[in-house]
Amino acid sequence: MNTTPIPATTIEFHLAERPVGWPTADTFRRVERTLPPLAEGEVRVANRFVSVDPYMRGRMNLGESYVAPFELNEALTGGAVGHVVESNAPELPVGTAVSHDFGWRSVAQGPAASFRRAAEIPGVPLSTSLGILGMTGLTAFVGLRDIASIKPGDVVFISGAAGAVGTAAGQIARLMGASRVIGSAGTAAKVALLTERYGFDAAFNYTDDAPVAEQLAAAAPEGIDVYFDNVGGEHLEAAIGAFRRGGRAALCGAIAEYNTTEPAVGPRNMSRIITQSITLRGFTLGDHVAAAPAFAQAMGEWFAAGEIVYDETVVAGIENTPQAFIDLLRGANIGKMVVRVDA
Amino acid sequence: MNTTPIPATTIEFHLAERPVGWPTADTFRRVERTLPPLAEGEVRVANRFVSVDPYMRGRMNLGESYVAPFELNEALTGGAVGHVVESNAPELPVGTAVSHDFGWRSVAQGPAASFRRAAEIPGVPLSTSLGILGMTGLTAFVGLRDIASIKPGDVVFISGAAGAVGTAAGQIARLMGASRVIGSAGTAAKVALLTERYGFDAAFNYTDDAPVAEQLAAAAPEGIDVYFDNVGGEHLEAAIGAFRRGGRAALCGAIAEYNTTEPAVGPRNMSRIITQSITLRGFTLGDHVAAAPAFAQAMGEWFAAGEIVYDETVVAGIENTPQAFIDLLRGANIGKMVVRVDA
Repeated sequence: MNTTPIPATTIEFHLAERPVGWPTADTFRRVERTLPPLAEGEVRVANRFVSVDPYMRGRMNLGESYVAPFELNEALTGGAVGHVVESNAPELPVGTAVSHDFGWRSVAQGPAASFRRAAEIPGVPLSTSLGILGMTGLTAFVGLRDIASIKPGDVVFISGAAGAVGTAAGQIARLMGASRVIGSAGTAAKVALLTERYGFDAAFNYTDDAPVAEQLAAAAPEGIDVYFDNVGGEHLEAAIGAFRRGGRAALCGAIAEYNTTEPAVGPRNMSRIITQSITLRGFTLGDHVAAAPAFAQAMGEWFAAGEIVYDETVVAGIENTPQAFIDLLRGANIGKMVVRVDA
Repeated sequence: MNTTPIPATTIEFHLAERPVGWPTADTFRRVERTLPPLAEGEVRVANRFVSVDPYMRGRMNLGESYVAPFELNEALTGGAVGHVVESNAPELPVGTAVSHDFGWRSVAQGPAASFRRAAEIPGVPLSTSLGILGMTGLTAFVGLRDIASIKPGDVVFISGAAGAVGTAAGQIARLMGASRVIGSAGTAAKVALLTERYGFDAAFNYTDDAPVAEQLAAAAPEGIDVYFDNVGGEHLEAAIGAFRRGGRAALCGAIAEYNTTEPAVGPRNMSRIITQSITLRGFTLGDHVAAAPAFAQAMGEWFAAGEIVYDETVVAGIENTPQAFIDLLRGANIGKMVVRVDA
């Protein structure tokens, strides 16, 4: 039984305006409001961690994305995890750990069906249910297994590899039999972490002067079979150029393009897609929830066997959520970035 | 029994130099040579038709392609069809119609295993075994069925639709259940042919002032599901922009890019591949020969039922093979272009 006092108010962060280019403090508005009484079948949840993820930048724009744009003057929705502190729903008693999609707020309240039980593993922080054991781990798993059809022996390249999805993907690729795993990251410290902690066979810094294509060719002199793309832009062109025949790319993110106001430059080597029988396939997790049980089983076994390491960048205090998100887009995180609600 | 006199010499066209940009008459060299006596197990074949195909332009370059570059000072290899005129192989007696890959020459000679029997259908020219009943028909079939995974109800867009592969693809798409088939072509006459003869629901001229994206949006106001790409460049970007969620592109050719010496411009809307879960997949026929029996059965039934129309652009005279190829790259053909060996 959890002994948290029942909060009567919630602190939320709303989308105040749609950013052009990089979001700023003015993009968001802090709102504190009193919660209405619980209705029948509802629970109130004191959040422990809320998630900040690169994909949220796309939802701040109007226009099409894979999920609807965020509404102006509403709390930003997204992953969060906490404990039930008040319950009118017998299936979720007080003290139950739950994850949900109510996003950037200190307290969430709604019908019990909107919340999922979260595993509480001794010695493992609850925040992992937003990361390696949750959406980001599943994203890496689906991208490699279902989108890129990874096979034992494949040479795998992962861009933005020190991020939440990248660190998961590098380890999952190795566990799925990759013969060589190569990663790119944006600082020397991250590059070192990839080879020293995450088991990448080679890694390089994409902010170095040498073009990505050159650095990739040096790291994978015989070419690559699978590319897991978190960055887009120059990285995607380099991967197309490095693919061996039958290469497969899972396009997951394009953080290089999220905040730019310049026109995008497309890969100039698309003809290789024909001559080398390459497949580029984009995906978003919403289409692949059916993979969650297989992921939970595989990751549960790997995790229990000590095969998985992870890092979290934990920002303390719900008040710092907007800044944490801005820092995430600048690459300040190693592994999954989460905001701990308590300061 | 065929009564053609046995030729003692062959006229061949060799690759004299690797073209930069558009090929010219200087790219090729005419060579007439005396044939050696037939060895045991060999046949001599008087060609009736030789094939000129856009993919041959890629083989004229050095560097990687899906098949090895043409050798300098050798006859260009490729599809051809003719009759056995002399045989040291009992399985292919004189008079047998055969297709083969010895390419641009009036007479072919080699081991019987290098020749395949060609169907002779009353009232149907033998040249169709190079086109609608042969490689080009199979290319359209594989691209739609195996690469783009066409489903009944799909809206299908085909670029370069008045060419050999395009005219086949438009009809096969309809026969596979497409709800709407849209084509682009480079002259008003070709555009008219697409809707009036080939059953396309809509077609437009990509040389008009209006951008391809605008013309495609007008022809497919609710978007497209499948794109069969013979052109590349601006067409591919337009298709990416028009895809509905889950759209699939079969990248077969990029004739817009074959002869340009300008740097290619890549699609500037690659981020849509992620947000709309789009798949771009390149293919070359060599990986899909296993589909030939299924194609032969399906096409045989459609053809016999009168469901398939086709055009051929027949150039008379083996001497005109290089010019036919150059004209093909300029879009002078409607349907499959072949060279009839006899003038």
